[in-house]
Amino acid sequence: MIRPVEWRNGAVVLLDQRLLPAKEVYRVYRDYREVARAIKEMVVRGAPAIGVTAAMGIALGMQTAQPRELARSFERICKRMAATRPTAVNLFWAIDRMKRAFESARDRGPEVVREILLQEALAIHDEDIANNRAMGAFGAPLLPKRGTVLTHCNAGALATAGYGTALGVIRAARESGKLLTVVADETRPFLQGARLTAWELKKDKIPVTVITDNMAGHLFKNGDIDAVVVGADRVAANGDAANKIGTYTVAVLAARHKVPFYVAAPVSTVDPNSPTGEDIPIEERPAREVTHVVGEQVTPQGVKVANPAFDVTPNQLIAAIITDRGIAKPPYKRSLAKLLKTAPAAMPGGTKKRARKKPAR
Amino acid sequence: MIRPVEWRNGAVVLLDQRLLPAKEVYRVYRDYREVARAIKEMVVRGAPAIGVTAAMGIALGMQTAQPRELARSFERICKRMAATRPTAVNLFWAIDRMKRAFESARDRGPEVVREILLQEALAIHDEDIANNRAMGAFGAPLLPKRGTVLTHCNAGALATAGYGTALGVIRAARESGKLLTVVADETRPFLQGARLTAWELKKDKIPVTVITDNMAGHLFKNGDIDAVVVGADRVAANGDAANKIGTYTVAVLAARHKVPFYVAAPVSTVDPNSPTGEDIPIEERPAREVTHVVGEQVTPQGVKVANPAFDVTPNQLIAAIITDRGIAKPPYKRSLAKLLKTAPAAMPGGTKKRARKKPAR
Repeated sequence: MIRPVEWRNGAVVLLDQRLLPAKEVYRVYRDYREVARAIKEMVVRGAPAIGVTAAMGIALGMQTAQPRELARSFERICKRMAATRPTAVNLFWAIDRMKRAFESARDRGPEVVREILLQEALAIHDEDIANNRAMGAFGAPLLPKRGTVLTHCNAGALATAGYGTALGVIRAARESGKLLTVVADETRPFLQGARLTAWELKKDKIPVTVITDNMAGHLFKNGDIDAVVVGADRVAANGDAANKIGTYTVAVLAARHKVPFYVAAPVSTVDPNSPTGEDIPIEERPAREVTHVVGEQVTPQGVKVANPAFDVTPNQLIAAIITDRGIAKPPYKRSLAKLLKTAPAAMPGGTKKRARKKPAR
Repeated sequence: MIRPVEWRNGAVVLLDQRLLPAKEVYRVYRDYREVARAIKEMVVRGAPAIGVTAAMGIALGMQTAQPRELARSFERICKRMAATRPTAVNLFWAIDRMKRAFESARDRGPEVVREILLQEALAIHDEDIANNRAMGAFGAPLLPKRGTVLTHCNAGALATAGYGTALGVIRAARESGKLLTVVADETRPFLQGARLTAWELKKDKIPVTVITDNMAGHLFKNGDIDAVVVGADRVAANGDAANKIGTYTVAVLAARHKVPFYVAAPVSTVDPNSPTGEDIPIEERPAREVTHVVGEQVTPQGVKVANPAFDVTPNQLIAAIITDRGIAKPPYKRSLAKLLKTAPAAMPGGTKKRARKKPAR
């Protein structure tokens, strides 16, 4: 199974996604600042994976914090993690969970604090996989018995602790016997589709065809796409969904061709503090990602480029939001609020905290 | 002025567009088979430029044809040119013109045949620039006084003998005092926007911002795009327009956001023998253009890709077709048929054949 982020022997281990598919390199991090930099520079990416990595980075940083400065260290580490990527709300959700764990333990001495924080980070990791399995179970029935599902970017095992959100739904549908093939947008500028989605689907022997982003319209027009499933980096309270740049265009095409467009995201991606998509900050990333491809400059020297990393798909273009606690249907304000109040225990597949008996330190 | 294709000293000279913007290399061709290969391998591209190059290639091939085998040589050369690219109808239009020129001269001896064919190729070249100026004059009033025009691929000087179709309209609008900036889709897989459109607009000091193809939706949604102008490789009799892959998606986005979408193409791009877009053959190009970017493989080994080079935008998404003989408006079947019957002499800017007194041989 693909493990993009793990806790191993007292360190955070990340699969360097910038080097895939050419090289499968696992990097070992023993300094939380290096973990923060890895998030910022997209060694690891994908909203749920960012959340898991940030939690582990916090646990890592606290292992070496001075006993007399626990609270100050904790605050500094959390701040550093929060400054990495602005759009993925799972990052802030994970930091909040770590803060609550810290509060519950802070008066019980440094050893207990460290242990509780590590347990919490490991729980976030394990729950994420369980949540993806739950999403798969809820979402699989929505997909057709046979046909082609288009996905954008990588919302797969690599974007999570494992199994994936959008690709988790596709995996679950295939496991339930549905004959689905995948079309993956290559997803410029970072090429997550061409590099990562293609890599992990090939590993799982799920048939995949890679297209450049601008080919999707042609395929919709030819009737080649039967459904769309994408992930999300933040879902507003009204169901507007921020996801990788280009998702909005796919949603517009799907609407024009009457193809259902689904978003798969755990409830930790739903942000009750963002009433609508207008309230979601959109990260602008370095120009070099657009001007250069695989290290080679493609634009003329000095030409201006734009590089918004995300766009917002308005709720009316979304047929359903597949979460780990069930399916949300329009109107989303109501259905999402209801799911946010649903106990995780109610989910199929279960996402209850399960203590690891012997985490490898 | 940018000259992507020229006749110089008895040879065809092409600016190698595969190397732009990094290198400005002009290649000299003395063998018509090499000219055919240059078209196929996209040393030169853009429907009008392909037509001009094919005509010059035919004239070139005939310069060394055996006097006793003129007709057979001519047929062989035309066949070779026709087999280069299937979608751009200007190619077949130019070959037809050369055939008519040949018929008019074939009984007058090899010297006259060669001279007439060369004059015809030079006329096609010069008329193309004049046609683009005419298109500019007709199209400029359609664009807003100020704002941002999005274009896809490269329908500029580099796609023609000079000045450009879509970019010609933008140039003319700017020359008439309109304050327009350009957003250029990078246009994967060949990156004509990032490499070529950016290069020629920068050369002309027209402000341009390059985006990845999947960013266009975000810009439309933010109200950042005021008009779209693209070129075409073939326009069906009903106004359906084939153009570089991704154009259809831009048209769908423009329609959703009520932004006018214009096609700029000379009447030589209109194909009365293609009643609708369904009748236009779509070239499938080599997989390597998608799997590799600037020579580096980005997809995992063995992963399937698609590479349709064009898509068809249905007429109902097109606000107007800007031709060298005037503006066609819906219903296009009627307006295009009328323009096809209009004498070229009636055009502003004039596209009458002008004999070059002393073509450089």
